[in-house]
Amino acid sequence: MSDGIPARALQLRSLVTDQEAVQVSLEAVDVPEPGPDQVLIRMEAAPVNPSDLGLLFAGADLINATAGGTAERPVITAPLPPAAARATAARVGQSLPVGNEGAGTVVATGSAESARRLLGKTVAVAGGGMYTQYRCLDAAACLELPDGVDAVTGAASFVNPMTVLGMVETMRDEGHTALVHTAAASNLGQMLNRVCIEDAIPLISIVRSAAQVKLLTDQGATHVLDSTTETFMADLRAAISETSATIAFDAVGGGQLASRILTCMEAALSAGNPYSRYGSDVHKQVYIYGTLDRSPTELARTFGFAWSVGGWLLTPFLIKAGPARIAAMRERVARSLTTTFASSYAGQLSLVQALQPDAVAAYARMATGTKHVIIPHEGAAAG
Amino acid sequence: MSDGIPARALQLRSLVTDQEAVQVSLEAVDVPEPGPDQVLIRMEAAPVNPSDLGLLFAGADLINATAGGTAERPVITAPLPPAAARATAARVGQSLPVGNEGAGTVVATGSAESARRLLGKTVAVAGGGMYTQYRCLDAAACLELPDGVDAVTGAASFVNPMTVLGMVETMRDEGHTALVHTAAASNLGQMLNRVCIEDAIPLISIVRSAAQVKLLTDQGATHVLDSTTETFMADLRAAISETSATIAFDAVGGGQLASRILTCMEAALSAGNPYSRYGSDVHKQVYIYGTLDRSPTELARTFGFAWSVGGWLLTPFLIKAGPARIAAMRERVARSLTTTFASSYAGQLSLVQALQPDAVAAYARMATGTKHVIIPHEGAAAG
Repeated sequence: MSDGIPARALQLRSLVTDQEAVQVSLEAVDVPEPGPDQVLIRMEAAPVNPSDLGLLFAGADLINATAGGTAERPVITAPLPPAAARATAARVGQSLPVGNEGAGTVVATGSAESARRLLGKTVAVAGGGMYTQYRCLDAAACLELPDGVDAVTGAASFVNPMTVLGMVETMRDEGHTALVHTAAASNLGQMLNRVCIEDAIPLISIVRSAAQVKLLTDQGATHVLDSTTETFMADLRAAISETSATIAFDAVGGGQLASRILTCMEAALSAGNPYSRYGSDVHKQVYIYGTLDRSPTELARTFGFAWSVGGWLLTPFLIKAGPARIAAMRERVARSLTTTFASSYAGQLSLVQALQPDAVAAYARMATGTKHVIIPHEGAAAG
Repeated sequence: MSDGIPARALQLRSLVTDQEAVQVSLEAVDVPEPGPDQVLIRMEAAPVNPSDLGLLFAGADLINATAGGTAERPVITAPLPPAAARATAARVGQSLPVGNEGAGTVVATGSAESARRLLGKTVAVAGGGMYTQYRCLDAAACLELPDGVDAVTGAASFVNPMTVLGMVETMRDEGHTALVHTAAASNLGQMLNRVCIEDAIPLISIVRSAAQVKLLTDQGATHVLDSTTETFMADLRAAISETSATIAFDAVGGGQLASRILTCMEAALSAGNPYSRYGSDVHKQVYIYGTLDRSPTELARTFGFAWSVGGWLLTPFLIKAGPARIAAMRERVARSLTTTFASSYAGQLSLVQALQPDAVAAYARMATGTKHVIIPHEGAAAG
């Protein structure tokens, strides 16, 4: 292989042990040789998304995490509560690579022209195992970053942007014209707010503090509701009446939030109509796409029979959407990576730093403004 | 109008008062004159379906029902618990007719040939307000009962038969090949069992006692599970593995049953596959079509992201299905009214008897084998 590329490099791995614990470590792995249509990417940035944390820490109790290993090869171990142990029983003993997306420089390629033309370019990629120093992938999976967009800026060009566009496309596909979003002060929520402003889609953002209301309002959001206030239900009902939102994307999952949203939708829909014991016949939809609250979803069913609550994930949406629509979505993202689809980070971490208990406590909180990006090449070598 | 038809006749009415109570009574109403395309039906039988009880008693506390009125015009009054009062606030002060379906004899018609040809025939009808002595409806809405099928036998030819066929058609439309049914010892559940045997559709029937297991097994059911046993989850998982059922119709609604069904489906689907933290990508569906348990639906979300729980009702299904499919379904029902689509009743009640507290306690229980049929012409006159 080319000069300067080592034979072995570091990769972050997550292992659920048969002792009901998760162990996150750095392993030295062979740097792969690209096939004819493939490229080898020196990974320079990979964000820690909420969707990465589940695989990374398996729902472990991180307050009781312990540090081990050496300074160059730290190992962090944390116990799994019983529910997390049950939920991850199928992965016991499998050392898994982590990291949904990232960006870096193409340092070697296969013989095909589609691969060779990317040599030296900065590309963004998705597909798992991105918390690694070198990643080999099909050239077709690479998004070439526009001139002037570096790896850190382009590292999060897949998961959040495509999820946001997928939500908007799902809303349109299913005949809705406005939407509700929860945990809406997240990076993803701020991005959704920008897309909805661009596309003139009425958006109701549900957050959990006055500071988050201000954050989104300052970014031009019209309907931002704090679910911890006493007037929340009345405010939500009024906002739904005004926007006619009949679909919601919920990152919380547990508790009564989905049920409350459906109840407010139903109240807005049935206001002024004659009594029907089956409720309004307008379909109301909540899609749960996250698990910020792991407790059960409680549905009071005070919203008639024309409703549905279900899981929503990006990948099945993309499979349904097909290559042409995906390409159009990716082009839109690439055009606005530093504006509409920009991500912001609370900090950068080397692979070694990502395994320090203090750092874990900071980036695994899934609270607003705590998102970090891993810089796989910084300060660590396979030795 | 023709001889023998009175000017006024009795109709059962349900009223939610502003005192948080429901009042069920008999009112004398004008017997309507049929329009050109209409027929006047002397109602001879109308079943009390679970779907009627919600409108009839508004979720009242029937243990504390009190009898009033006169012997000929009894009135039964029952208090509404706070949740029921809230749920029915929109109908306070509206005296509502009740009864989804029934059958009787056409005693007068309009001038159109489509109406006149039904004179003297026994017909089955649906459309509300069937607990009445005379009901006027469009001729096109009448199902002429086959020779030898009387009104009592044909009275329940719409709600349960079309619901059962609607479930099977929904299963097929959405790409499933086997189904799970709860509260499966009901009249509807027994009918679904017969249809599934006829159509060779694998069916898992979930019931709540050993006696109900025997009832369905004696009727040829293969997979009948008692949810009160300790082995229920393991049995359900095994039955789902065997049948590949990925859709359920749930009449219970509240509690953890829907969640348990989804959990067993997911366990059956992911057995032997590599670990995925998002779960199986096969879609799992639970439709809630009843409210035997009014408590919240609790979803543990231990079943990945490819799932949906939603309301299901016959009417929206029929609107989607369209006239040609509805006609085919009705023809199938008419052909087998005394076999596949037969209903059985624990007893018959006149309108006056239907308002006696003892009778109400018996027919409003929604327990297996307690279904009654009202005979509107028996023992009461508008006076």
